[in-house]
Amino acid sequence: MIDLILKKKKGETLSREEINSIISGYTSGAIPDYQVAAWLMAVCFRGLNDDETTYLTEAMMYSGEVIDLSAIPGIKVDKHSTGGVGDKTTLILGPLVAAIGIPVAKMSGRGLGHTGGTLDKLESIPGLQVVFEGHSFIDQVKKIGLAVCAQNEHLVPADKKLYALRDVTGTVDNISLIASSIMSKKLASGADAIVIDIKLGEGAFMKTLDDAEKLASIMINTANKMGRKLIAVVTGMDQPLGNAVGNALEVKEAMDTLQGKGPKDLTEVCLELASHMLVLGQKAASTAEARTMLQEVLDNGLAYQKFEKFISAQGGNLDEFANKYDKPTAFTVPLVATQSGFISEVFALEVGRASMFLGAGRETKESSIDYAAGIILAKKRGDYVLKGDTLAYLHTNQKESINKALEELTKAYVFQEEKPEDSPLILKTIV
Amino acid sequence: MIDLILKKKKGETLSREEINSIISGYTSGAIPDYQVAAWLMAVCFRGLNDDETTYLTEAMMYSGEVIDLSAIPGIKVDKHSTGGVGDKTTLILGPLVAAIGIPVAKMSGRGLGHTGGTLDKLESIPGLQVVFEGHSFIDQVKKIGLAVCAQNEHLVPADKKLYALRDVTGTVDNISLIASSIMSKKLASGADAIVIDIKLGEGAFMKTLDDAEKLASIMINTANKMGRKLIAVVTGMDQPLGNAVGNALEVKEAMDTLQGKGPKDLTEVCLELASHMLVLGQKAASTAEARTMLQEVLDNGLAYQKFEKFISAQGGNLDEFANKYDKPTAFTVPLVATQSGFISEVFALEVGRASMFLGAGRETKESSIDYAAGIILAKKRGDYVLKGDTLAYLHTNQKESINKALEELTKAYVFQEEKPEDSPLILKTIV
Repeated sequence: MIDLILKKKKGETLSREEINSIISGYTSGAIPDYQVAAWLMAVCFRGLNDDETTYLTEAMMYSGEVIDLSAIPGIKVDKHSTGGVGDKTTLILGPLVAAIGIPVAKMSGRGLGHTGGTLDKLESIPGLQVVFEGHSFIDQVKKIGLAVCAQNEHLVPADKKLYALRDVTGTVDNISLIASSIMSKKLASGADAIVIDIKLGEGAFMKTLDDAEKLASIMINTANKMGRKLIAVVTGMDQPLGNAVGNALEVKEAMDTLQGKGPKDLTEVCLELASHMLVLGQKAASTAEARTMLQEVLDNGLAYQKFEKFISAQGGNLDEFANKYDKPTAFTVPLVATQSGFISEVFALEVGRASMFLGAGRETKESSIDYAAGIILAKKRGDYVLKGDTLAYLHTNQKESINKALEELTKAYVFQEEKPEDSPLILKTIV
Repeated sequence: MIDLILKKKKGETLSREEINSIISGYTSGAIPDYQVAAWLMAVCFRGLNDDETTYLTEAMMYSGEVIDLSAIPGIKVDKHSTGGVGDKTTLILGPLVAAIGIPVAKMSGRGLGHTGGTLDKLESIPGLQVVFEGHSFIDQVKKIGLAVCAQNEHLVPADKKLYALRDVTGTVDNISLIASSIMSKKLASGADAIVIDIKLGEGAFMKTLDDAEKLASIMINTANKMGRKLIAVVTGMDQPLGNAVGNALEVKEAMDTLQGKGPKDLTEVCLELASHMLVLGQKAASTAEARTMLQEVLDNGLAYQKFEKFISAQGGNLDEFANKYDKPTAFTVPLVATQSGFISEVFALEVGRASMFLGAGRETKESSIDYAAGIILAKKRGDYVLKGDTLAYLHTNQKESINKALEELTKAYVFQEEKPEDSPLILKTIV
């Protein structure tokens, strides 16, 4: 291992066998943390070339179980987002593309950040199960075209170890390490094609379009070398996507969106991502054609019906959900504007933190989530408000958290006299 | 710690407090190996400036016990060598400068490389003790001006941990890390002034004069900031120093040298280093004056008498030594030249390894040493030999090791038709 550290330190290129020996040795425990830490730091300074990144992704992918979806007919298309506050696109995209006939066999995780993950959101629906036994996951996809299950614990153990080590050794920001972490999991999950939503903005991992494009091209290259197709869409994350932040609140918003009544920004991002999924899944020849097809299943109710079938197949009860969250929480508190003007910023990070304080996210891995808690943004970037207008509604069952959350959410809103320029939602598509 | 890793990764400068927190946290176990490994790698890429190197040295020095030599009157001068095969200069320099009145309170270590360390060499003398109780070490220096003891185990624990970690993480070669490792130990040992012998050559740590000069200037700067004086002498190590390699054999050669009958190269290096020690110890105004004084104590027997007093004070018996090693080993085997020509190289590394095979060094930390074993070089660089001449004598008690050692030693000798240019022994003095 010392030789491999020194090789990378000198800026030399590592072979497939060498990278594989690092990853398999680290996964098995034969190579200690401190040697991998030194190697990761050398990688941050020297970088990995396209081949090395592919070898790293491949070695990580095969460090654990690899899912075989070949029993499901058709081109399986997966979607991944680099993460954002209020991002409920998975809940919408799954039924939307499944309604057109693209099989979706999705593995999702729980939220570790300020807001819940896709699994947490789904589990706000009474009765819904995300753990499948035996072939039932694949059977459900074959039957209704869509299933979402909890991430297999035996998938990509190398990434779990490496990610935890990078987190505490200041080696998170190398673009090849980021790409291999995302791609190894997506590839091990078995999809034939993948649409990646790279979030760009203040609160996101990628701060510049240049970095986002680099990440996209590394991931496309890796996917292609591994025989998969990948399209990356760079989307803006200068404010939360949609108006709802919080688990049940986001499910409601996803249901609205599947019925054509969702917020404009969320609907637009979903249609853009879904149109690429349709092209990759060979259900449409172009994104324009795909858009028409997608609008049709939103309008004729097929998308929402697919959602209902999917929830019901996994044991969820939407009537109980509607009753339970009719009046979601004990306390509903408005955040009132203390000045008039145009809203120039709604910082996603502060909204996420405020939402966590209300009970919607986990402060630590062991925290429990209040599915009902969260925030509805009444005003967003570009809106004009008068002093006294309501900016947002806070929902919580914890009276003691209200002031802390209000204070945090106040920091999210920035005002100016002039109407701010529109900031584009879809920044770039990289094929 | 993550912030400090990231700071160095970005090339920023760390403060005294920050460096101290890294070293104290690592020594106490509060900061784990993997974080320090990542930091060390960032240091290799970004470097440490003069201030940071001083702070690091200071933090390491105070990580454990610090020796107080103030009870000994006069300027205590220490000497350190970056290590070399056949380097018995400590055995000679101690008595030599003590004979002139410079108090020498020396801590030495055992050899971990191919040949024994100073302690191993001394312990080849029957009865000699290197462990002192209470004040007896300082008392001996006060009484006879010279004592050599085993390295205090509580000295610079940070260096022990860091050195072991650097060794397995490919981070040994940064010049500030090397300097702080050497200097923290020397400063903690309590000397007022230090002469550093930086070995330069194929088999040495420093391969170029430029690197050696950089190391010297960093050490001088650090010493000065800590209120100590330091002179660095860069000496060539393209072949072993002197003719003897092996513990008792080297003690004999040191005794010869102290009586003015030593090999020319060894005598010259000792006189050079000792002359700087005399200047630092304010016993001579110039190295020229120092040389005259040193020659005098060699000629009038005072240097050798100091050696005898020192050995006797530590319990050693030189009569028994002479008897025991009169015929040192069961087997004495010549290495015979298989061709005629000038010797252009005697590679120190191969000589060291051959000597280890004969029993003179430790293959692992647990190996025991045969004090009698070793090599006497009959021919060195620049000598002309005829086919059949003896190049060296191998001494061993292990018959089975002879062929392996002969083979290794054969690799050490390189011949050419032309007489090789003289390679300078003293390359540079840096004050």
